[in-house]
Amino acid sequence: MPFYARVAIIGVGLIGASLARALKKHALCDTVAGCGRSRENLEFALESGYIDVIEQDHKKAVSDADLVVLSASPMISVELMELIAPALIKGAVVIDVGSVKGRMVESLSALVPDGVSFVPCHPIAGNERAGAVASVDDLFSGAACILCDAGAAPVEVFDDITALWRAIGSDVSVMDPFEHDSLLGLVSHFPHLAAYAMVNAIEDREGNAIGLSGGGLKDTTRIAMSPASLWRDICMMNRENITGVLGGYIDELTTIKSLLESGDAPGLEALLEKAQKRRQSIEG
Amino acid sequence: MPFYARVAIIGVGLIGASLARALKKHALCDTVAGCGRSRENLEFALESGYIDVIEQDHKKAVSDADLVVLSASPMISVELMELIAPALIKGAVVIDVGSVKGRMVESLSALVPDGVSFVPCHPIAGNERAGAVASVDDLFSGAACILCDAGAAPVEVFDDITALWRAIGSDVSVMDPFEHDSLLGLVSHFPHLAAYAMVNAIEDREGNAIGLSGGGLKDTTRIAMSPASLWRDICMMNRENITGVLGGYIDELTTIKSLLESGDAPGLEALLEKAQKRRQSIEG
Repeated sequence: MPFYARVAIIGVGLIGASLARALKKHALCDTVAGCGRSRENLEFALESGYIDVIEQDHKKAVSDADLVVLSASPMISVELMELIAPALIKGAVVIDVGSVKGRMVESLSALVPDGVSFVPCHPIAGNERAGAVASVDDLFSGAACILCDAGAAPVEVFDDITALWRAIGSDVSVMDPFEHDSLLGLVSHFPHLAAYAMVNAIEDREGNAIGLSGGGLKDTTRIAMSPASLWRDICMMNRENITGVLGGYIDELTTIKSLLESGDAPGLEALLEKAQKRRQSIEG
Repeated sequence: MPFYARVAIIGVGLIGASLARALKKHALCDTVAGCGRSRENLEFALESGYIDVIEQDHKKAVSDADLVVLSASPMISVELMELIAPALIKGAVVIDVGSVKGRMVESLSALVPDGVSFVPCHPIAGNERAGAVASVDDLFSGAACILCDAGAAPVEVFDDITALWRAIGSDVSVMDPFEHDSLLGLVSHFPHLAAYAMVNAIEDREGNAIGLSGGGLKDTTRIAMSPASLWRDICMMNRENITGVLGGYIDELTTIKSLLESGDAPGLEALLEKAQKRRQSIEG
């Protein structure tokens, strides 16, 4: 089992703070330094025992860390890696937790100094809440975690990071960074955008229609409570994959609208039935 | 508390069979006759004790009933009412359980003979399953039920039907039939179509992307397993309300796609943030 004497968490939000808590809970580390923009958030994390020390200087935070976690906004990951790179110690391992890989992994990998390893990680966990206050110590338990084998990290480091995620309960799979973005664009990024759009479309028509609707639609649109700035970044970074499926979705909806307008019941049924069968086959 | 000696259920599917079971469970009726197209389904309901007698002739089924439930496909409700009207007894009460009201209520009301009362009901319950085999005896417990006061039923009959739904656990509200269709088009019919379209858009791109995605997207698209023929009918019948919000949704998605294509991060964030705030305000 891997063990890290000093961990630096850059970005002590829902993911960063939950990871700090999980590492402590499973005795995978000794002390955790937390670094981030919001003093209030860091103080809450410190008082709650999620982190052991607040370090506002990024370089100082990583200067004795054997594990560095980049868990701030994915939009600033490259900036952060540039900032901390000169301060990383030999043998340190850097992981990120970003929802977009692909070229981002290439950019980050290019900045990693000799003697330091980088393992791109994407724990598929989280919810619509934000900040250390939303963290839990079992966020990753039972959740999928995709590791991207960029080929740069030594196999023993990659194995350690795999063991780390497994130790905190994650179901690890390994994927090419670009394959990751294509799949996540479909099953995560696109549905988030669809949920935001749905809230706006419904509430433009009637003030509190979703509130009146009871459970179903509230569940469907819950992900639209996710932080807008985070999803702006994720979707902008993966826009090439997302615009394709978004276009296909708009086409499907436009076809449905036309079928309704022309009163083509058999045509509508054929389209609904195709979806029904596909969705049922997934259920097994 | 109302009590019905003889109930006729026309259409012993998920809703019809669950209502039969709930009426029996709460001692609101004596015997239940079941009428429907599928002999196998009716025999299953009879053997399971959900109904007491199978009656394949619609007129015979209602000829001694003091409560008649129209719970077949909403598309054939008018036909069914025409068929049974001559056989209804004085003092009988007819209810439907259809998801579309509006002009449908006008058409049905016009067919109700003198001395018979009609109370349009819409229990907002159900799931993606179908048939008596999917029924449960507490389907309506804790669920909303909208009654449309078309003004035709005597107040004491309306009160009895209100008491019936409350007795089996439903949260009853009263609404104008056209107001009902406008609201349900937004919060139920439109999201169903969006879910069917989403399954097709995603699975056109990658064979089993939804299956790979874990919980979130499976939940979001679960309603796409609902029977295609039922939702074809509901959506065709309420198409005037649905096409409006569908058009607004397509516009929202098209705007998002353009913002992604032009790399307009602030524009995208503004749109996502509007949705996030609206959705959060609903959560209270």
